Amino acid sequence: MYRSTNCGSLRIENVSQEVTLAGWIQKVRDLGSMAFIDLRDRYGITQLSINDTCAEEVRNMVSKLGREYVISITGKVVERSSKNKKIATGEVEVVVEKLTILSVSEVPPFTIEDETDGGEELRAKYRYLDLRRNPIKNAMILRHKMAKEVRNYLDSKGFLEIETPILIKSTPEGARDFVVPSRMNGGEFYALPQSPQTFKQLLMVAGFDKYFQIVKCFRDEDLRADRQPEFTQIDCEMSFVEREDVISTFEGMAKAMFQNVLGKSLGEAEFPRMTWADAMENYGSDKPDIRFDMKINNITDLAKGHDFGVFDDAEYIGAICAKGASVYTRKQLDALTDFVKKPQIGSKGLAYARVKDDGSVKSSFDKFFSPEALKAISDKVGGEATDLILILSGDKKQVLHALCELRLEMGEKLGLRKNGVFAPMWVVDFPLLEWNEEQERYTAMHHPFTSPLQEDMELLTTDPGKVRADAYDFVINGVEIGGGSIRIHDRELQQKMFKALGFTPEEAENQFGFLLNAFKYGAPPHGGLAFGFDRWCSMFGGTESIRDYIAFPKNNSGRDVMIDSPSPIFDEQLKELSLQIKKTL
Amino acid sequence: MYRSTNCGSLRIENVSQEVTLAGWIQKVRDLGSMAFIDLRDRYGITQLSINDTCAEEVRNMVSKLGREYVISITGKVVERSSKNKKIATGEVEVVVEKLTILSVSEVPPFTIEDETDGGEELRAKYRYLDLRRNPIKNAMILRHKMAKEVRNYLDSKGFLEIETPILIKSTPEGARDFVVPSRMNGGEFYALPQSPQTFKQLLMVAGFDKYFQIVKCFRDEDLRADRQPEFTQIDCEMSFVEREDVISTFEGMAKAMFQNVLGKSLGEAEFPRMTWADAMENYGSDKPDIRFDMKINNITDLAKGHDFGVFDDAEYIGAICAKGASVYTRKQLDALTDFVKKPQIGSKGLAYARVKDDGSVKSSFDKFFSPEALKAISDKVGGEATDLILILSGDKKQVLHALCELRLEMGEKLGLRKNGVFAPMWVVDFPLLEWNEEQERYTAMHHPFTSPLQEDMELLTTDPGKVRADAYDFVINGVEIGGGSIRIHDRELQQKMFKALGFTPEEAENQFGFLLNAFKYGAPPHGGLAFGFDRWCSMFGGTESIRDYIAFPKNNSGRDVMIDSPSPIFDEQLKELSLQIKKTL
Repeated sequence: MYRSTNCGSLRIENVSQEVTLAGWIQKVRDLGSMAFIDLRDRYGITQLSINDTCAEEVRNMVSKLGREYVISITGKVVERSSKNKKIATGEVEVVVEKLTILSVSEVPPFTIEDETDGGEELRAKYRYLDLRRNPIKNAMILRHKMAKEVRNYLDSKGFLEIETPILIKSTPEGARDFVVPSRMNGGEFYALPQSPQTFKQLLMVAGFDKYFQIVKCFRDEDLRADRQPEFTQIDCEMSFVEREDVISTFEGMAKAMFQNVLGKSLGEAEFPRMTWADAMENYGSDKPDIRFDMKINNITDLAKGHDFGVFDDAEYIGAICAKGASVYTRKQLDALTDFVKKPQIGSKGLAYARVKDDGSVKSSFDKFFSPEALKAISDKVGGEATDLILILSGDKKQVLHALCELRLEMGEKLGLRKNGVFAPMWVVDFPLLEWNEEQERYTAMHHPFTSPLQEDMELLTTDPGKVRADAYDFVINGVEIGGGSIRIHDRELQQKMFKALGFTPEEAENQFGFLLNAFKYGAPPHGGLAFGFDRWCSMFGGTESIRDYIAFPKNNSGRDVMIDSPSPIFDEQLKELSLQIKKTL
Repeated sequence: MYRSTNCGSLRIENVSQEVTLAGWIQKVRDLGSMAFIDLRDRYGITQLSINDTCAEEVRNMVSKLGREYVISITGKVVERSSKNKKIATGEVEVVVEKLTILSVSEVPPFTIEDETDGGEELRAKYRYLDLRRNPIKNAMILRHKMAKEVRNYLDSKGFLEIETPILIKSTPEGARDFVVPSRMNGGEFYALPQSPQTFKQLLMVAGFDKYFQIVKCFRDEDLRADRQPEFTQIDCEMSFVEREDVISTFEGMAKAMFQNVLGKSLGEAEFPRMTWADAMENYGSDKPDIRFDMKINNITDLAKGHDFGVFDDAEYIGAICAKGASVYTRKQLDALTDFVKKPQIGSKGLAYARVKDDGSVKSSFDKFFSPEALKAISDKVGGEATDLILILSGDKKQVLHALCELRLEMGEKLGLRKNGVFAPMWVVDFPLLEWNEEQERYTAMHHPFTSPLQEDMELLTTDPGKVRADAYDFVINGVEIGGGSIRIHDRELQQKMFKALGFTPEEAENQFGFLLNAFKYGAPPHGGLAFGFDRWCSMFGGTESIRDYIAFPKNNSGRDVMIDSPSPIFDEQLKELSLQIKKTL
């Protein structure tokens, strides 16, 4: 027996018990006449003490021990003379009677501490050591709890978890598919799913009216900091439902997650809903952070016609009002100007106005505006004494984007984007289609299976760009956590949709024939959604990188530097797969 | 709203309620003046009735309806005049007030009934229709319940479910790896895991002392009826454990599954254990079906020396005793002889002896044996009046294999392999290594990370073939449901093992360097196991094919005939992957 209990369990009630513990040595303090060892496992740290009452054999071993050695000890629990209130086991220690080294350790390449001295690359290479650190360990525990909560909730609502295949079929729509050559079917390929979308719809056709799956999905694309080539979705679908049913079911799930994982009650009230159009107009984003207000105001009418060329030439002029920020210095304002001029934001300059204590307004464009005209702008944006009004002008799309970023920046600076505060919401009524300039055709904003809103159905043939989708995104604190839609379940409508997307009937049949075929045999109305599980974990965990919540993540180049993959394979393997490597420049 | 309740819920208590139901039409019986519709969903069937009290509009729709149409109806629950006791809703029916066709259906290619007229190929192509049938639908529900039970049990024992990567690294040991070309790393490949073995061991090194995962694994090999290119494992690992800890933990899980999924209490007693050597000797198999006894007996000593050449020339003579089968006719015995002569069994003939009512023995080789010699054989195998003794001779390995098959055949014929009876057991102490004639080297019987038994450690250098592994298989009714082992956690021992398997140090480093490296930094003793989830489902479900328990399975050629995959991909895709197809003959 290696242990009778774990390193996080002993309390003052256990004093005088004999216990056996096993774990990793966090630290040895050898004081000569006595020594203390911090023994660590997944559950905590227990202090071991070796003093002159201990057997000589044990005392002699102390000098042989080092950080991260794995040992098993037996000894008696005693009350500590100097207690450590910071840890749960801090009132006791174990006086060692027997000590066995189970495994030695070289000096680890970085310290196994909450704040480590190891850089990102090094920690990735030794991920199994990084996983020993509390922040990463706790991220894994959080992820486990969240998955469990999802499953408990959905099971209690009658959902069935059904596994869909990983080896599926490549489609040209899925330009970023990973493909898998088949040995048994030479020259042919499977593809890894970017999502189980079509399969879950087939499950609805099959009569499984409530489906979910926590499932790996795959995308072979250039990676940004928060993307991974393999990622995990909470994938869900329901039959005989309208948007309202889906939203209320998963709002319930989100509330249960907040309550049971974070201990946060979000009350009975529904999460706020916002149309996509309103979100874009008021926040410049389809995933607004509504932990704070500071909406974008359209002041085009008020700002134009004062002979200020910058405004007069602009398609759109928008403003946000930063509460209490009129104290911002010239230097701070210059920094904000630099911020909006960054290439990824792309504004030409920043106009501003301070609301003074007496309510009067002083702006960077005073010479063009009467005090009343300034006051009118201030009133429009809800300006009050001590507020700072920030104004951008130009092309509407660009200005909204810039104001969105500026708003988030100001929210950050003013401490309005608080950790531990959560503002979940739904964004609804997305456009169904986006015009793709490059390909000169419409593409689906979500995917080709999204249903138009009933009331916009006619527009699909007359003015496709105007059609709104019966789609919804779940957003927390400005981060898209999930999204979904009511699906098309009618074969003719689906064919119409493929046509609007520029598919020939043959292409549609070739790629999605199995789904169109399934719709011939009684397809129920259905809809669903999928959550990005990695991202939801990082949202609940309070750190930005989803990598911390993935046991063995890949880096920005899609590489696992620990196992050194991807890597070349043997010629023999290539031959069996009927393949040859042919690099092009 | 499409429904207020489901088609399995209405009872006599609901009479006079107004309800809305949605589902598929199982059957329409149009009697002219009235009509009955069986409406089906995942939860059951409810009878709808349309009579002359119904609106004309509704009455007129009856003739338009057909099998598998999806409809939504509103109506009043009434007591049936002729009740159907076979179904839970059989006491009531719903008189239809409103009927909406949600989706029409062509005549399905096979009947959606428990016993269907569709062949395997057709049902596979229309899997979404096959999934509507009760046997397949119930298989999915069973699978969901089993996964839930596994998770509940392991969570309650402190196990964490941790996802390991699907895009990993190919190793030559994994000759049957599926590989995945990387677009971003041209000419390089990921591989899909045959199991998360090394990753779960790294999780142990990382300090997660209790890990599990219900996870997809992949193997690109010629498929037998009960194999799939992608399959699901319940993968588990524990630290600071010996074999006993692992076995008792998962025996507990198995008992919970029997209890909570099948409602079968297996009591307090431990599952039987058997060494591999005993299993081979007594059952000719490393996965004995112990629902019935009929052990194999070694009668070599008793059978030799009677001038019967067939026996005298044999290395080994073995016998089984089929209780009460002495009534077997000549014809039945000839059939058994044909059975053992089949190429896959390979015996040359079958000897037999009947134990008569008076205890005397009459055999097919009487002329060589005295009555006493026959009696001695009969006594050895436990022969009693009315028993039939079946004897095979020859090469020991072949005879044991043949007797194993003959035993199962007789068990089947005598009704001893009862459905619904479960005999779980553990087989332990497997050989560590097998001699591979072709490659002229040892290969690992389980995998290269399996620890030798402590007491056999020395043999690893002196007589590797004799070394027993600290390994265990979980067997139910003659089917291997799971298996695992205590692992090597010592770098030097692991290197020794690789050497015994014929790896050069460079090969070992190149392929498993990350694991050997991890063992440098304090690896805990650890062990675990993995269960074949698909097979366990089929065991509990009581049918032989694991395909019934997989929502979208592949056929014997690894093809998904529903979506027609694998399939060719576009040249553009190949080019992006730096690949060219080159078929060889």
